[in-house]
Amino acid sequence: MTRTIVASATKEIVIGFDQPFCVIGERINPTGRKKLAAEMVEGNFETVRKDALEQVAAGATMLDVNAGVTAVDPNATEPALLVQTLEIVQSLVDVPLSIDSSVTAAIEAALKVAKGRPLVNSVTGEEEKLEAILPLVKKYDVPVVAISNDETGISMDPDVRFAVAKKIVERCADHGIPAHDVVVDPLVMPIGALGDAGRQVFALLRRLREELKVNTTCGLSNISFGLPHRHGINAAFIPMVIGAGMTSAIMNPCRPQEMEAVRGANVLAGTDRDCMTWIRTYKDYKPAEGGHAVAAPVPANAPGEGGNGGRRRGGREARMARG
Amino acid sequence: MTRTIVASATKEIVIGFDQPFCVIGERINPTGRKKLAAEMVEGNFETVRKDALEQVAAGATMLDVNAGVTAVDPNATEPALLVQTLEIVQSLVDVPLSIDSSVTAAIEAALKVAKGRPLVNSVTGEEEKLEAILPLVKKYDVPVVAISNDETGISMDPDVRFAVAKKIVERCADHGIPAHDVVVDPLVMPIGALGDAGRQVFALLRRLREELKVNTTCGLSNISFGLPHRHGINAAFIPMVIGAGMTSAIMNPCRPQEMEAVRGANVLAGTDRDCMTWIRTYKDYKPAEGGHAVAAPVPANAPGEGGNGGRRRGGREARMARG
Repeated sequence: MTRTIVASATKEIVIGFDQPFCVIGERINPTGRKKLAAEMVEGNFETVRKDALEQVAAGATMLDVNAGVTAVDPNATEPALLVQTLEIVQSLVDVPLSIDSSVTAAIEAALKVAKGRPLVNSVTGEEEKLEAILPLVKKYDVPVVAISNDETGISMDPDVRFAVAKKIVERCADHGIPAHDVVVDPLVMPIGALGDAGRQVFALLRRLREELKVNTTCGLSNISFGLPHRHGINAAFIPMVIGAGMTSAIMNPCRPQEMEAVRGANVLAGTDRDCMTWIRTYKDYKPAEGGHAVAAPVPANAPGEGGNGGRRRGGREARMARG
Repeated sequence: MTRTIVASATKEIVIGFDQPFCVIGERINPTGRKKLAAEMVEGNFETVRKDALEQVAAGATMLDVNAGVTAVDPNATEPALLVQTLEIVQSLVDVPLSIDSSVTAAIEAALKVAKGRPLVNSVTGEEEKLEAILPLVKKYDVPVVAISNDETGISMDPDVRFAVAKKIVERCADHGIPAHDVVVDPLVMPIGALGDAGRQVFALLRRLREELKVNTTCGLSNISFGLPHRHGINAAFIPMVIGAGMTSAIMNPCRPQEMEAVRGANVLAGTDRDCMTWIRTYKDYKPAEGGHAVAAPVPANAPGEGGNGGRRRGGREARMARG
């Protein structure tokens, strides 16, 4: 059984086929957030702190930490800023972290100060990347996100994306990094631009799980880019990727509709034992008439009775029970 | 390609792997609805009319019609009542209908007056049922729902349920009924009672599609029986069964959260061409801050611009676009 172990100083998490879906909070990332970038440049980490606490409270399993505030000479500034950001976050919350940077020196600097067993985000199939990142991954004995593109860009052919993923896994093996420490990102395209994007990902996820036996992740909200009511598309996509074998995603845990989809899919995939998390989270939930979700759920860590529901057998009769 | 054709007097619908998910409205059914049963016995069809119109307005592809008002001598009363109910419904709405009864004489009486090509709901693997229903299905050249239980009840072993489904498909062939006119119900158990219920159904759906090449259906809300916030479980289940190959379900279309899951999964499965239905339905949708769904969507048949979103390419950058 494929098990990717990540850890903070005090908390170990397993990413795996038999585990609840691993939600990697995406918020601590200045890419596309000008205000946050400006704050971080000024040494103001209030938003970082707020995002860290809120994401964990909302149910994030891990947090991604990115300090890419500028495209101008990031090598000069990003290592120190990523270290500072990471240290603030790991002093504040106890979940494992993902070190997210395109700057090798920043990843190494962060690996030096990270507690536990962080995830490195990411390596690609580009030769230069492989040779820069894999020795660090081996040296610090950490897992790594492998994005299935290379020098030629992102292929629209899923067979090529699978081949790139396979190459990265093999190169990892050459460096002494086992497949269970490689978390493949098959790359999710916007469905509004590419009608086949969903089916491509579902097919890729199955092959990655069955043939390469690796854990998987993706930048989840990319699927709904450009469409109206993106939460609805994201919330349908989550159960579908979980059903197809995806084991983690980089996403916004502060969105109740998406987190509800994660929790529901965990129940249905059999990774929420006895539906305990579902029951604890939603036992006092009051949707409005007509099935709309209007009230925030009770946090999953609130005291719960558990196991009070669903103990009856169904069949043709229960089929008619209406919800 | 498996295509099950159903029709009303004026409208033909295809159930198939490459078609939008077929939502069979479950509401016109007095089972467990005492008030409706009492009304129907008195010849009052106001609720039936209301349920017919509301379900079609909410997006039902077909309507199930059941007149099982009593367990006491249904043979005496149900044929005439089912005919009456069916005639009222088909005079009111233009969607194809599903004739739902456990009384053979009621099914035959309804088949005589139904316009178009209704679906017969249902036959099981029981010998007596097979011999009673299949000749009618052949005579009237209609498709039939095949429920995968038999004299021994509902097996908890999915291999046995698959074998029962296979037997029914073979018996249909003996009667000259092609596999594309058999819509198999693999039977959905409540996940709260049987933690494996989801995985069982997903595995069964794949086998039914790949090995028997049949369309499939289920009583959808049965999965969440006994759990709190059933809509959330149903809404996660829908994309998962669609991803696993299910092509229709008997469900309540008047639940916006569930219908949103259907529409989202259609987009992701590639059966909502150019996301047209999604864009038409949700282009003016205003979820509350935090991703809650509070406003009713614009009906799908409202005039829409279509195609205005999602025309940009994504990748690593779009991955960071937040929804």
